[in-house]
Amino acid sequence: MSKQKIAILGAGPSGLAQLRAFEAARRAGVQDLPEIVCYEKQSDIGGMWNYTWRTGLDKNGEPVHGSMYRYLWSNGPKECLEFADYSFDEHFGRAIPSYPPLCALLKDYIMGRIDKQAIFKYIRFECPVRWVTYDEGTEKFTVTVMNHKTGEQETNEFDHVVVATGHFSTPNMPYFEGVEQFPGRVLHAHDFRDALEFKDQNVLLIGASYSAEDIGSQCHKYGAKSVTISYRSNPIGFDWPEGMAERPLLAHFEGNIGYFTDGSSKQFDAIIMCTGYLFHFPFLPDELRLQTNNCLYPDNLYKGVFFQNNPKLIYLGMQDQYFTFNMFDAQAWYARDVMLGKIALPGVFERRQDMQQWLSRHEALASCNASIDFQASYIRDLNDATDYPEFAVEKQADLLKEWLLHKQENIMGFRENAYRSTVTGTMASKLPARWLDIKDDSLESFMSLDFVENKTFDKVD
Amino acid sequence: MSKQKIAILGAGPSGLAQLRAFEAARRAGVQDLPEIVCYEKQSDIGGMWNYTWRTGLDKNGEPVHGSMYRYLWSNGPKECLEFADYSFDEHFGRAIPSYPPLCALLKDYIMGRIDKQAIFKYIRFECPVRWVTYDEGTEKFTVTVMNHKTGEQETNEFDHVVVATGHFSTPNMPYFEGVEQFPGRVLHAHDFRDALEFKDQNVLLIGASYSAEDIGSQCHKYGAKSVTISYRSNPIGFDWPEGMAERPLLAHFEGNIGYFTDGSSKQFDAIIMCTGYLFHFPFLPDELRLQTNNCLYPDNLYKGVFFQNNPKLIYLGMQDQYFTFNMFDAQAWYARDVMLGKIALPGVFERRQDMQQWLSRHEALASCNASIDFQASYIRDLNDATDYPEFAVEKQADLLKEWLLHKQENIMGFRENAYRSTVTGTMASKLPARWLDIKDDSLESFMSLDFVENKTFDKVD
Repeated sequence: MSKQKIAILGAGPSGLAQLRAFEAARRAGVQDLPEIVCYEKQSDIGGMWNYTWRTGLDKNGEPVHGSMYRYLWSNGPKECLEFADYSFDEHFGRAIPSYPPLCALLKDYIMGRIDKQAIFKYIRFECPVRWVTYDEGTEKFTVTVMNHKTGEQETNEFDHVVVATGHFSTPNMPYFEGVEQFPGRVLHAHDFRDALEFKDQNVLLIGASYSAEDIGSQCHKYGAKSVTISYRSNPIGFDWPEGMAERPLLAHFEGNIGYFTDGSSKQFDAIIMCTGYLFHFPFLPDELRLQTNNCLYPDNLYKGVFFQNNPKLIYLGMQDQYFTFNMFDAQAWYARDVMLGKIALPGVFERRQDMQQWLSRHEALASCNASIDFQASYIRDLNDATDYPEFAVEKQADLLKEWLLHKQENIMGFRENAYRSTVTGTMASKLPARWLDIKDDSLESFMSLDFVENKTFDKVD
Repeated sequence: MSKQKIAILGAGPSGLAQLRAFEAARRAGVQDLPEIVCYEKQSDIGGMWNYTWRTGLDKNGEPVHGSMYRYLWSNGPKECLEFADYSFDEHFGRAIPSYPPLCALLKDYIMGRIDKQAIFKYIRFECPVRWVTYDEGTEKFTVTVMNHKTGEQETNEFDHVVVATGHFSTPNMPYFEGVEQFPGRVLHAHDFRDALEFKDQNVLLIGASYSAEDIGSQCHKYGAKSVTISYRSNPIGFDWPEGMAERPLLAHFEGNIGYFTDGSSKQFDAIIMCTGYLFHFPFLPDELRLQTNNCLYPDNLYKGVFFQNNPKLIYLGMQDQYFTFNMFDAQAWYARDVMLGKIALPGVFERRQDMQQWLSRHEALASCNASIDFQASYIRDLNDATDYPEFAVEKQADLLKEWLLHKQENIMGFRENAYRSTVTGTMASKLPARWLDIKDDSLESFMSLDFVENKTFDKVD
């Protein structure tokens, strides 16, 4: 029998998890590993975590993947994504605060765990996938990619395809009457790069989820004249500082004036739509294409990863996420063991039953805390079946619940809280100043800050 | 024999020309016309001429096609794109100026000729093409499109495929050192929508072709503090008004300061890259994919349209353009007659010889005037072979040469010139004020202006 071949589409957090899972098996002495090719659209690993100044289309004319912006700090405690086999202490050599700048600090940590020499050899950069087909007769996938480095396409056959292309890249951008005549910038959160562009402006954000919350806070921090957040169903409800306010849904624009459904109106200089993302797989035919909205348990994915119509097709990270990297790892390790034949996939009916049970639990979720526990138990279910290093997913869930409370207490100050590592027990240090006052987010600048050891604070608090 | 089937990809100016060519044949009594389907990504006809407030990706997550912006006036005399069978007099019922606002006025004229009832029945809107293959055995193309209206893909076979998707939609966006740290908006001309966004700003435009020239003029007209145009090889060289200036190529950025290769520097608030477009056909496999740069005679297109590797594949409008709509018509009528079997395609060797002769002429072109004549003779060559209504392409070429002179004379005032119709002999009227002072470009506003009959002006001049 010839070697199995596996295509991984994307070298972001999920795709890298899959590569690391196979690499871990190799190091553990597993023989006859499949042949692996990872196709990546960008010219580096990291997916969403690659900051780019580009918006719209990239240098090769492909849609820009990243939604990362400058001055972006972690909006959740770093302790909730700490890896069991690679602690923050190991990476930084000292305690650092719980909410570090995302791009400089957290990316450094996440990438620090990756053995680039071992991983890069699988990756084909600047190779967006053009089209995938599956042949029922040969039971093989045919994958065609555009290799922008050579200017030529490449077509190969695979036994498994792992879709790790993410679902926070293709903006969902609703229309509002009059927006086509708005005399200022109109953009989606995906294209937001630099809050300084909106200094001294009256900025309207439409949407009431993480993007609106964080981009609104950024704009406020970097000098916007006013920040208005428009919600459809419910306000975010934080105690916003002066200059930030929530209003109900926008009804229409007349020139530069926005009219809201409560009858109020306000003049704006820019509109940022924080209206979420579409699941977009332009390279997949219908019979292979996942169709879902952003939720904690998309239907038709057994164990959250195996496509029900064809379980040789694997989707990673398609869930909405409280947990991120640790969940991708759990999925990738499980998917690896199925591809290696260590775990047998049950038949179509049993897979449906298993999904149905999770979908019922999912439907009954009534609070954020319950949702966090739900995702934790999903991860626990996967990890119990593989040799993934034991980690305290339930403890991380508890931290996430604390985080929600801290945001509620002080949305401009919650990043000044510190949490204890579930891996090493180390208490995070504290920021030496208010988050609002630390405006340089570079690695050098941040690491040269005089972090406050938490013991002192524990006494003072 | 079953009916031939033809797929037209795109319902912009070129695709519409192809539809009109077949419709003209039907009206002329041609029997047994092929079955035609036109797939269009947008939700209306017009292609590039559809203004959209969106940038980056559209409501379906597909790359936005249009590069149209507000306040865009024609940058060439309308008399150079007048149709032989549908004059400006017939459409507007009176003489209008030679340079009308593009989106409101010219689009109205161009669309006025289209029999929507006859044409729309062929068009499938919101159906971007996903993938095309050709089977050597059956000699058929298989075309898969995503129907965003139903959420399902559709796959059909065709005898001919006409690629009419344009080549001014996918930005070419070079990198400059330090641009990733520039603290203001960085965009491509493709994403430029509204000059008012740049009021009171110092704007840098990189590029020295039509986009830089026109967007620079717009920004100046609508109140930019300064407009700097950076050229790679040669300055555009017009006599720019105060507040506009040219500099050599940008070397790098430090913060918001641009440093140029002549050692000079300047602070900027926004960067607009007017750096052209890529030929981008993500739906075509290599063996069907045209590879060219933007020029007056791309190689491997016999008669400028038939793909040399497979002449059942037709490309419309892939040339750089002095002539636009009239050229698309000439191509579409010729392509139609080949598809209908009225014109026989010569063999591969003769096609190569014919292309070679045009390519040699193309290579020898040494001036803009020669280039205009070259494109005119290309159109003449096509039109002489079909029943397309006779029109004075050489006279329109002469108008284009006048236009170049008028731009050289006064880049801010050239739109105040008037030309004589090559179709009706009507002299255009004159604008009642300076172009710089007419800031409302709506159809209603423009048509309510008191145009100056040209006779008077002829005497005064």
